[in-house]
Amino acid sequence: MPEESTINNFASDNVSCACPEVMDALVAANSGIENSYGQDTHTLKLNATLCEFFEKEVQVFPAVSGTAANALALSALTPSYGKVFCHQMSHINTDECAAPEFFTGGAKLIAIASDNGKITPDALKSVYRGKGNVHAAQPAVLSITQSCEVGTVYQLDEIAAVTKVAQALGLHTHMDGARFANALVALDASPAEMTWKSGIDVLTLGGTKNGCLAAEAVVFFKPELVEGFAFMHKRSGQLLSKMRFVSAQLQAYVSNGVWRRNAEHANAMAARLSQGLAAIPGLELEYPTQSNEVFVNIPRPVIERLAQKGIQVTEGELDETAPPRFVTAWNSTVEDVDRLLCEIESCGR
Amino acid sequence: MPEESTINNFASDNVSCACPEVMDALVAANSGIENSYGQDTHTLKLNATLCEFFEKEVQVFPAVSGTAANALALSALTPSYGKVFCHQMSHINTDECAAPEFFTGGAKLIAIASDNGKITPDALKSVYRGKGNVHAAQPAVLSITQSCEVGTVYQLDEIAAVTKVAQALGLHTHMDGARFANALVALDASPAEMTWKSGIDVLTLGGTKNGCLAAEAVVFFKPELVEGFAFMHKRSGQLLSKMRFVSAQLQAYVSNGVWRRNAEHANAMAARLSQGLAAIPGLELEYPTQSNEVFVNIPRPVIERLAQKGIQVTEGELDETAPPRFVTAWNSTVEDVDRLLCEIESCGR
Amino acid sequence: MPEESTINNFASDNVSCACPEVMDALVAANSGIENSYGQDTHTLKLNATLCEFFEKEVQVFPAVSGTAANALALSALTPSYGKVFCHQMSHINTDECAAPEFFTGGAKLIAIASDNGKITPDALKSVYRGKGNVHAAQPAVLSITQSCEVGTVYQLDEIAAVTKVAQALGLHTHMDGARFANALVALDASPAEMTWKSGIDVLTLGGTKNGCLAAEAVVFFKPELVEGFAFMHKRSGQLLSKMRFVSAQLQAYVSNGVWRRNAEHANAMAARLSQGLAAIPGLELEYPTQSNEVFVNIPRPVIERLAQKGIQVTEGELDETAPPRFVTAWNSTVEDVDRLLCEIESCGR
Amino acid sequence: MPEESTINNFASDNVSCACPEVMDALVAANSGIENSYGQDTHTLKLNATLCEFFEKEVQVFPAVSGTAANALALSALTPSYGKVFCHQMSHINTDECAAPEFFTGGAKLIAIASDNGKITPDALKSVYRGKGNVHAAQPAVLSITQSCEVGTVYQLDEIAAVTKVAQALGLHTHMDGARFANALVALDASPAEMTWKSGIDVLTLGGTKNGCLAAEAVVFFKPELVEGFAFMHKRSGQLLSKMRFVSAQLQAYVSNGVWRRNAEHANAMAARLSQGLAAIPGLELEYPTQSNEVFVNIPRPVIERLAQKGIQVTEGELDETAPPRFVTAWNSTVEDVDRLLCEIESCGR
Repeated sequence: MPEESTINNFASDNVSCACPEVMDALVAANSGIENSYGQDTHTLKLNATLCEFFEKEVQVFPAVSGTAANALALSALTPSYGKVFCHQMSHINTDECAAPEFFTGGAKLIAIASDNGKITPDALKSVYRGKGNVHAAQPAVLSITQSCEVGTVYQLDEIAAVTKVAQALGLHTHMDGARFANALVALDASPAEMTWKSGIDVLTLGGTKNGCLAAEAVVFFKPELVEGFAFMHKRSGQLLSKMRFVSAQLQAYVSNGVWRRNAEHANAMAARLSQGLAAIPGLELEYPTQSNEVFVNIPRPVIERLAQKGIQVTEGELDETAPPRFVTAWNSTVEDVDRLLCEIESCGR
Repeated sequence: MPEESTINNFASDNVSCACPEVMDALVAANSGIENSYGQDTHTLKLNATLCEFFEKEVQVFPAVSGTAANALALSALTPSYGKVFCHQMSHINTDECAAPEFFTGGAKLIAIASDNGKITPDALKSVYRGKGNVHAAQPAVLSITQSCEVGTVYQLDEIAAVTKVAQALGLHTHMDGARFANALVALDASPAEMTWKSGIDVLTLGGTKNGCLAAEAVVFFKPELVEGFAFMHKRSGQLLSKMRFVSAQLQAYVSNGVWRRNAEHANAMAARLSQGLAAIPGLELEYPTQSNEVFVNIPRPVIERLAQKGIQVTEGELDETAPPRFVTAWNSTVEDVDRLLCEIESCGR
Repeated sequence: MPEESTINNFASDNVSCACPEVMDALVAANSGIENSYGQDTHTLKLNATLCEFFEKEVQVFPAVSGTAANALALSALTPSYGKVFCHQMSHINTDECAAPEFFTGGAKLIAIASDNGKITPDALKSVYRGKGNVHAAQPAVLSITQSCEVGTVYQLDEIAAVTKVAQALGLHTHMDGARFANALVALDASPAEMTWKSGIDVLTLGGTKNGCLAAEAVVFFKPELVEGFAFMHKRSGQLLSKMRFVSAQLQAYVSNGVWRRNAEHANAMAARLSQGLAAIPGLELEYPTQSNEVFVNIPRPVIERLAQKGIQVTEGELDETAPPRFVTAWNSTVEDVDRLLCEIESCGR
Repeated sequence: MPEESTINNFASDNVSCACPEVMDALVAANSGIENSYGQDTHTLKLNATLCEFFEKEVQVFPAVSGTAANALALSALTPSYGKVFCHQMSHINTDECAAPEFFTGGAKLIAIASDNGKITPDALKSVYRGKGNVHAAQPAVLSITQSCEVGTVYQLDEIAAVTKVAQALGLHTHMDGARFANALVALDASPAEMTWKSGIDVLTLGGTKNGCLAAEAVVFFKPELVEGFAFMHKRSGQLLSKMRFVSAQLQAYVSNGVWRRNAEHANAMAARLSQGLAAIPGLELEYPTQSNEVFVNIPRPVIERLAQKGIQVTEGELDETAPPRFVTAWNSTVEDVDRLLCEIESCGR
């Protein structure tokens, strides 16, 4: 196994710890007897809370892994001989070790190359084919990531436009919301607006990257899609026996604007970092910084000089050709951002 | 979804919360930056700790679900066209919603009926067949549960005897240790003695039922069996991004005898309950109580009278014919045990 | 790979060649251009012919392997987390190398032990459990074999009784008709009576064992169960490009009473063999001979003496404890049957 | 189900019947008793014959479907979490309804776009990544098609060059030889030269498109790769009970130069058609015609005029943007080719 990363504040938002509110809730949940396997009071309450959060009757299945939550969500939406349309650089396509193929029983991910990590209606249409042809895996799902893997954010009308095409083509729609909150605050939109009101059927709601320990959820906006999902949830090992400890995290996370505060901070730090990097001669941002990820082309010698100073830069995260990536988190500090900028600038001279 | 259980202290050991040491460790781990996906200091340390714990160079893959840990372990040991020999009442056969079949790509569980939840050498031999015959799923794994699903415990020589036969038949051997600690203290054996010294190749080490929040591990005693397991681990969604929070639990759990203290207490409470029940006229223990589960035949009218008083009895846990089950935990109290006994006796009059 | 069988007329009905009408049809089909992948005139005609044969609008998917046809049929009837109830000695359970588990994505076969290879309503009810419980694989299908693997035949009312229970329990019903014709002539029933009129939803119609080269079909009696089956059919490799060559076999087979003549002959030869064996002192039939398979207990020394004379007896076909089996075919001769009887009798003295 | 094709001599080479030698062999094989499931004399002989054919000790597993043979071969070469590198327009990627994903338990096909249907070393290197990274599906197999789906043929040194890179990258190598013979005669190479001598590990040897009824084979050039393949073969439904009927076809096909004669004829007819089309003003060949497939850009109005005359042109075979395709077969006639040319020319005026 390679040393993929070393300790570095900006390697990813999952190198951070959990925020106090979430940790406090976890500690508070550690008391008394609770039913197991999601029949506990925390999980029942969470479902009600998320109905309010999304302004809709939703069905919620907590999970502890984003990979599993995505793959599970897809397995509810595609037959085993189906096609999942996704971006070429999507996490489900590049970073989940074929979990979607595994959970779906062999569905096929169709990788779409389009700008800025976003799938456009035309890009989707250009690869869509094979419906009703027994020789072709069957078009089944459109999966988009919000915010995108390259740190960009779909505008609401962009989501609506691509899901409209998807629905016209008979596809279900999935949103990988590993960084859901970062996108929400970037758009200043409501959870409802960014999901079902824009045509999303099923959401992977991420909490881990934005202040939880390990808490995600598959959220169904269409009850008719749930079917046997409870069994797939159990079978996959994501229905924890002491589910209270996952649900309590999510409950704290979506309460009192914790998610918002954390995401706003992370995004602000990314903006600061992005602006700082753009101002350094010789550096070029690879993608517009719209949430909490910054991709920047840094010359090889600079990367090496940084490494000599113990500052690891994560490269090739999504793709071998991907430029260095910095990710800010709920607890990134102005000092760290400025120190990083200072070091890069200094190494770049 | 049926109401499978209601709040009841003895419904299972997973209705309990986590013990203080584990919770404290979790809180303590919530600080600073750590590499993600198991490259963190907690996970690296855990692996070293478990090498000591088992007196052997082991390879450890933490997980958060017992179902997933079992199914993953089996998937390392059987081809997709293989057979897994297990007890008819084993958790993998009855309580994991076909997760083993899913994770292994379609392996076949061969259910063995034998006394007291234990597989004997003869019982294994009596169902073993088909080796080398292309029409038959291929014998691949023996999986035993320690302590057993019915609360009994294999003696060390019983484990050695059945694994010896398994090995002679060319099978790998797996132990479902969801209640590993309860068995260890019952036998007063060392972890090494109850596993690899008795012929076990791979262990599912359970922590959740004995004082953790959500912490299990797949432990390989034979490095040559690991192969691509890291990829299966990731693909299954059990390689958490913030793995430190799982490893920290297990670290605390196996340190300073926490596992032992918790299990000794749970077993003692089960013994007290078992003895109390046996003394009540009209009741009969279904299995000898050797760890922290008590199965007892309670007449239907008594069960109904208990229900009227709000005391739910879990029936048919393993099998529709299974009698009422009571499970004690690390934090069961003498008072609760005695109160339960009192109520049952009173309803039984 | 072991030497599983040696050349022996009665080792199985698949050691025989194809009957003249089927071979002639194959040769006749080998002319001109035909659409590929089942869009040819032979396949279209076959579907119409089978609608008449079954007195119902059926949907037919030809296949070339009984194992695949069974596994495919099951995959249309169970979710990947489902349970298939079948006899312990059923071909799907013992002789298909976990193909059902593979094709269904991990469904669980629940093996039922009951007399004479037949599943009774009570036997089914006794193992049925777990509906709606997320921890349990979900009851999905009842699969029966007609004629049974041990040569017995369900009476029409026996089929109706067990499928009635199955339907009441919410199960779909499948019939493995590898030896469908042998059962039909044994009962003197119509194809309709023995299938959908008795509660069967999907049939694996076998042709190979009764005079075809390689021709089976999955027959749906309920159009609503077909759904995406065409894609699973293709994906599994059973939708042949030159499907005309499979369909032409089946067309000839179900026309002009070929199936009936072949099966009647095979059954008559089995009856002759069975009666002859029963009359030999020291031999005992293991099961009543009702179709074209004869199971008889032959003392070990007799088997060995037969082997010395080059007569191989197939043992342990279904189960290690299964007694010797003899299978007659459409082209078994009275002379061969009588010669076999003579040899066994002579070796038994 | 759409009307995918209509009767048309050039729609594909699988709309043709079988050649006389193959049919005669099938009829001849229909006599006497033979062991079932590949233990028959025909299959044993075939293996020996193919050892000679390939000038190497090979292991052969006959099959009846090219889709299944490809998917099975891949399943022997990749773990379920593996990557299969293939051309974007490869049959395994576009025309097998996700069979490779199904048979491999979820492996991921990485589609490579490169010219003329051939994968170049650079194209392979440009998409190769992720080795040893737990987040990435693991590079496992290179699969090339010979002749290619667009009618081109890899030169021997092209095969050697790309397999050399593959091996250096730790990949196994597979050749989809659905039109193996067409490529062989195009290159005037020996079977050994075009396969293992050029770095191929496993071949799908196609017979169906070049004069067989339904006969393919998975051929292993490296015995160490076979492992449990016999079980996967059985489990998939490709191990026919009356395997003699598949093996007899292949035996006749590879004997006495039948394969060569058939392929030479088909290629000659394609060359004639290709030259004729190239000479028609307004038409442009899309790919060089090197085997028995011709891709030509025909203006829409011409296609429509042809359709009015009952001449269906197959479009979008590999890809929605694919131009019309004509495929010649072992029995295509000069008259038909010339008639087609005449009609196209006439409709094009």
